[in-house]
Amino acid sequence: MAHTTPNNNLQAIVLAAGKSSRFKTGTTKLLEKICGQEIVLYSAKLLEHLNIPTTFVVGFHRQAIQDALVNGVHHELSFAVQEQQLGTGHAIICSKSTWFAENILIINGDVPLVTAEIINELYTQHQTTNAGLSFVTAHNADPSAQGYGRIVKDGNSIEIVEARDFKGDTHQHCCINAGIYIVKRSLLDEALAQLTANATTQEFYFTDIVKIAHRKGHTVTTTVAPFDLIRGINTIQELWVSQQIKRAEIIKYWMEQGIQFSAPQNAHIDIGVTIGSGTRIASGVQLLGATTLGTNCTIHEFCILEDSTIADNTTIYSHSIIRNSHIGSHTQIGPFAHIHHASTVDSHVIIGNFVELKNSCVGAHTKAKHLTYLGDAQIGSHVNIGAGTITCNHNGSTKNTTVIHDHAYVGSNNSLVAPLTIGQNAFTAAGSTITQDVPADALALGRAHQVNKENYAHKLRNTQQTQHAPKTPPLPEQPL
Amino acid sequence: MAHTTPNNNLQAIVLAAGKSSRFKTGTTKLLEKICGQEIVLYSAKLLEHLNIPTTFVVGFHRQAIQDALVNGVHHELSFAVQEQQLGTGHAIICSKSTWFAENILIINGDVPLVTAEIINELYTQHQTTNAGLSFVTAHNADPSAQGYGRIVKDGNSIEIVEARDFKGDTHQHCCINAGIYIVKRSLLDEALAQLTANATTQEFYFTDIVKIAHRKGHTVTTTVAPFDLIRGINTIQELWVSQQIKRAEIIKYWMEQGIQFSAPQNAHIDIGVTIGSGTRIASGVQLLGATTLGTNCTIHEFCILEDSTIADNTTIYSHSIIRNSHIGSHTQIGPFAHIHHASTVDSHVIIGNFVELKNSCVGAHTKAKHLTYLGDAQIGSHVNIGAGTITCNHNGSTKNTTVIHDHAYVGSNNSLVAPLTIGQNAFTAAGSTITQDVPADALALGRAHQVNKENYAHKLRNTQQTQHAPKTPPLPEQPL
Amino acid sequence: MAHTTPNNNLQAIVLAAGKSSRFKTGTTKLLEKICGQEIVLYSAKLLEHLNIPTTFVVGFHRQAIQDALVNGVHHELSFAVQEQQLGTGHAIICSKSTWFAENILIINGDVPLVTAEIINELYTQHQTTNAGLSFVTAHNADPSAQGYGRIVKDGNSIEIVEARDFKGDTHQHCCINAGIYIVKRSLLDEALAQLTANATTQEFYFTDIVKIAHRKGHTVTTTVAPFDLIRGINTIQELWVSQQIKRAEIIKYWMEQGIQFSAPQNAHIDIGVTIGSGTRIASGVQLLGATTLGTNCTIHEFCILEDSTIADNTTIYSHSIIRNSHIGSHTQIGPFAHIHHASTVDSHVIIGNFVELKNSCVGAHTKAKHLTYLGDAQIGSHVNIGAGTITCNHNGSTKNTTVIHDHAYVGSNNSLVAPLTIGQNAFTAAGSTITQDVPADALALGRAHQVNKENYAHKLRNTQQTQHAPKTPPLPEQPL
Repeated sequence: MAHTTPNNNLQAIVLAAGKSSRFKTGTTKLLEKICGQEIVLYSAKLLEHLNIPTTFVVGFHRQAIQDALVNGVHHELSFAVQEQQLGTGHAIICSKSTWFAENILIINGDVPLVTAEIINELYTQHQTTNAGLSFVTAHNADPSAQGYGRIVKDGNSIEIVEARDFKGDTHQHCCINAGIYIVKRSLLDEALAQLTANATTQEFYFTDIVKIAHRKGHTVTTTVAPFDLIRGINTIQELWVSQQIKRAEIIKYWMEQGIQFSAPQNAHIDIGVTIGSGTRIASGVQLLGATTLGTNCTIHEFCILEDSTIADNTTIYSHSIIRNSHIGSHTQIGPFAHIHHASTVDSHVIIGNFVELKNSCVGAHTKAKHLTYLGDAQIGSHVNIGAGTITCNHNGSTKNTTVIHDHAYVGSNNSLVAPLTIGQNAFTAAGSTITQDVPADALALGRAHQVNKENYAHKLRNTQQTQHAPKTPPLPEQPL
Repeated sequence: MAHTTPNNNLQAIVLAAGKSSRFKTGTTKLLEKICGQEIVLYSAKLLEHLNIPTTFVVGFHRQAIQDALVNGVHHELSFAVQEQQLGTGHAIICSKSTWFAENILIINGDVPLVTAEIINELYTQHQTTNAGLSFVTAHNADPSAQGYGRIVKDGNSIEIVEARDFKGDTHQHCCINAGIYIVKRSLLDEALAQLTANATTQEFYFTDIVKIAHRKGHTVTTTVAPFDLIRGINTIQELWVSQQIKRAEIIKYWMEQGIQFSAPQNAHIDIGVTIGSGTRIASGVQLLGATTLGTNCTIHEFCILEDSTIADNTTIYSHSIIRNSHIGSHTQIGPFAHIHHASTVDSHVIIGNFVELKNSCVGAHTKAKHLTYLGDAQIGSHVNIGAGTITCNHNGSTKNTTVIHDHAYVGSNNSLVAPLTIGQNAFTAAGSTITQDVPADALALGRAHQVNKENYAHKLRNTQQTQHAPKTPPLPEQPL
Repeated sequence: MAHTTPNNNLQAIVLAAGKSSRFKTGTTKLLEKICGQEIVLYSAKLLEHLNIPTTFVVGFHRQAIQDALVNGVHHELSFAVQEQQLGTGHAIICSKSTWFAENILIINGDVPLVTAEIINELYTQHQTTNAGLSFVTAHNADPSAQGYGRIVKDGNSIEIVEARDFKGDTHQHCCINAGIYIVKRSLLDEALAQLTANATTQEFYFTDIVKIAHRKGHTVTTTVAPFDLIRGINTIQELWVSQQIKRAEIIKYWMEQGIQFSAPQNAHIDIGVTIGSGTRIASGVQLLGATTLGTNCTIHEFCILEDSTIADNTTIYSHSIIRNSHIGSHTQIGPFAHIHHASTVDSHVIIGNFVELKNSCVGAHTKAKHLTYLGDAQIGSHVNIGAGTITCNHNGSTKNTTVIHDHAYVGSNNSLVAPLTIGQNAFTAAGSTITQDVPADALALGRAHQVNKENYAHKLRNTQQTQHAPKTPPLPEQPL
């Protein structure tokens, strides 16, 4: 469908200069995200998909918006600057130096749910009726639907009355203006010159062009789109409503691809996520950013996966977090695991509960199942990392690497002081602090010898109860 | 608006003596919480806000209800006791010794969603019509809406028929009694004397007063309120419905203040919480009790914050719990952190994953990032707490304090045996057990020397596989 | 009600042979679970409850379906095999050798929400009208409700038109076929012989029997059921819808029993769960499998309990996981606890944060509050397990047991190297590695002596900053 729209005949102007004044965050609403993608990128990607050359009119927070656009789309974009916010009509005048096509599509930057079908239908109607101006409307008779201009027809005249000026009955004038137009360039040029500033606001309203076009005898046509798809975003509540609609669209799409959700109402999937068939997603799961899941994976409750890839047949148990990392196939992660900072986990690995991996890689068939911190570690395959193991990767000044070769066995509760290498097949005793490299096949011990002091526990308890806050144990005769 | 209601002319009686018999928990429903506040406190706080002197009629579980009221409002309250539950009419008779105002507002204790607007409108109408009796009604034609008396008008007569006695068509008699009345004291006095016990239940129904007032020629007026706002709570399901309505009200309020929720349907915010502008709240977050969030904070998924304060620009990562504690500004907490028992965290601090703080304070710019327990610890600024550090704050008999001064560096996997002081700029080696104070600028070591036994791992593995369940390692020649 | 249905007069045939082709998982939909129970078990258990002898016609994935049925119900079942999927009529022919009753109830295997009331009403009507054929219909005029045959009546004729053949107006023909029939055996026998294969699909549609029965002059009657209760499951979306309905039924049931849910819309309770009165369930809680909760328990947010029992008055704090385990009364678990692999926790126990129990038992009044792994451990009563304790239950080859007797005190950050026994009242020092048994009443120490090197920290920091990645600490003169 993208390719049915000719691109020589049509160019687009996106209005992205406004001040977001009803958005009480102090920043531009256009960079707020819906399902992980900035609002302004939705129209940019739609126009890219439709292969329509596009100019963004920017002003408020213009550099941040330009950066987001340039990073987000491959499509060639041009920018026009509106220095002062003097209304939508003025914004379009500011883009004039970029005009070249016969017809100009004008669209607001804050309508993220608009589809290719809506644009295609508008374009087709515009062409087949040889209209001077065509625009999209939607049905909404709710008087509380504020911020939308309303279509007022009288005999054969037509105009858009801006929301602030509309005094009529919304049930009689139930069509609102979606803010999406196609105009012949010649008409646009001529009509913009005739716009006058509104007496109250001193702004030039682009919507006045409808009245002007009609007066000049041009054909003015409209197409109707579902209201939900042309919703604009002026407040935080409207942002949330649009996010809910997009979220439901995304989850419905994945359900249709054979993905099972135990509670789709509680799951969240960003627009950049892909999921392989046969995968199951439990309640509360958040799949964020550019996350990719393989086939036949299971993601249990309350997991958060961001910008990560999970290969096929892998299970992520509940309450786990994976960010910016890669997990191999047939692997088990969690519950309560935290893998981040560009970590890489190979296939057939088990990473268990209360285990953190940071900037580390773990080879195939390796296990680290309990209460472990692996930071800046390069761990081979078939390695066992005992419960309670800590890589001491920071010495107060620098970060250092721990290297553990294949088939090594690190005993429980070890402190591995980096930089450190543990050789292939090496073995470290439980409770050891390992400060020097361990050769392949060696056994390393770094722990004190145990001493039992018979019948001493009773004495110790008595001492502690009579003294105030003594040591445990209070040892004059410390045995080492 | 509160101050437009004169208080010399009006006093309130709240009915809070009932048995909650349809509430199957065995205790009084009036102390169940809705969004963190006891049901009975909603009417108490509303009347406090409206500055109306108030008497609570108590009976069932009276001491607990009185305690909650006295703790919950600053407003002066009086109490009347209904020893036997003989009906609403009898309850009001029990309060007679507290009457002093010209008009008496009577309201049930189980209608937490009633607003000041409803009371003000009732009062205004009562005054402007010079009515003897005025009461609030709501529209509900649903025959399954049980427990509400229905207004029955016949010609110019009016009465309230109690739910158990109503036999008519709910669509014809679609107005229910909200249980909120204003009565002239003179009428109330006279009418109560004429109440008779219901033949079946032996209870005195206050609702009979409508018929009596009308018969005596008093003006009887009604005002209409939305049903959702006058809902009573007789069952656990009704408790839940009212909580949902209140929860939605609270979240809508905070959205209007510029707070962003990624999934408001899954977040929960108690009525006592305050949130600074620019703060973002993710899915599943529970903000409970008297929690206060600063500006520009981010609270990630599945966090629970209760009775805690979070200063500006702080991020709480997912799956973290903070109770009864204070977190400073520009600080990062979590994921998987647990801070409780009156802990205090200063600004620019990092508390990482699987870290617990209990009854501890942490100075500015200090870090404790991995798998750490800090209990009864006083930690200065710019301190580093290595991964896997445990404060051994309990010696079997008493709890003791660990003090760590500014710029100290505690190595990974340390056991800090309290009572203990680590001086400024001191350094402890990874894997140490620290039992004695460490002077400022000192290096403390408390770990065994490492020994590598070359080519021993293979032998060890063979031993283990041939013996049944041997030690690891099986050392006759333990090197220390 | 179950016993009002005579069982000599009625037998059931369940159609469970189909290919689930619209279910894109590659396996049979009949073994997908709704609220923890396989779809096909819903009809099996319903017929068991009604005491109706039942034959399942199986084909696709027949062994797995038979296994699930034999494991899931105690009722005696017979099976008939449909080798080729030639339509529902053919499936019933395949069951012919099992027929014995006067009337035969035919039902699809994929309608899990059907109730005993629906079957009883159909049977009663069938008997009282002496019908040849009776079947259940439901009202659904939505043209998007695909996959349901529609009832078409013309004068006094009646037939079911299969969804793929229906061309009419769904508002005019708003009754759909629920796929639940009772037929006289004599009629069934005769009519099946007259079925012909559909020209397009070559399948034998059982629904043609309605037309045949009518033509033969038999009485054909219908009863109406709510559409939600007769929903079939052909797609993943329909599976989800049915699960939502069942989930809401289950939660409504428990609310009516006096269980309080803070957010029932986010909780999930499987059909096999039981809950004692006075228990409270917070947001996000998942109660799975055969879990049983006692009275007056509190289950906090985001907990997952599967196939476990929790005795009375126990609190499970948030973010905890309990699987295949038993927890005693008056016990506190979590937050962030993970108890699994047939662990047993006695009464008055405290298991705290970041603690894992695997295949372990813990006696009454014992505490393990922080960052601990207890695997293959047998722990007595009144034991204290210090923070950071690790049972080293695996030595590289075998798993071994740790036994800790009553009133023992294990100091913080201990490594307990199994096999190991710690005697009654014994005491181990903080930071110890315990490799040998500790006698009763003994104090065991297994840690190095601490050495403070005065004014060395500064030197150490300088060394680290000038060298590249040195050890921490760089000790030529390691003091042990």
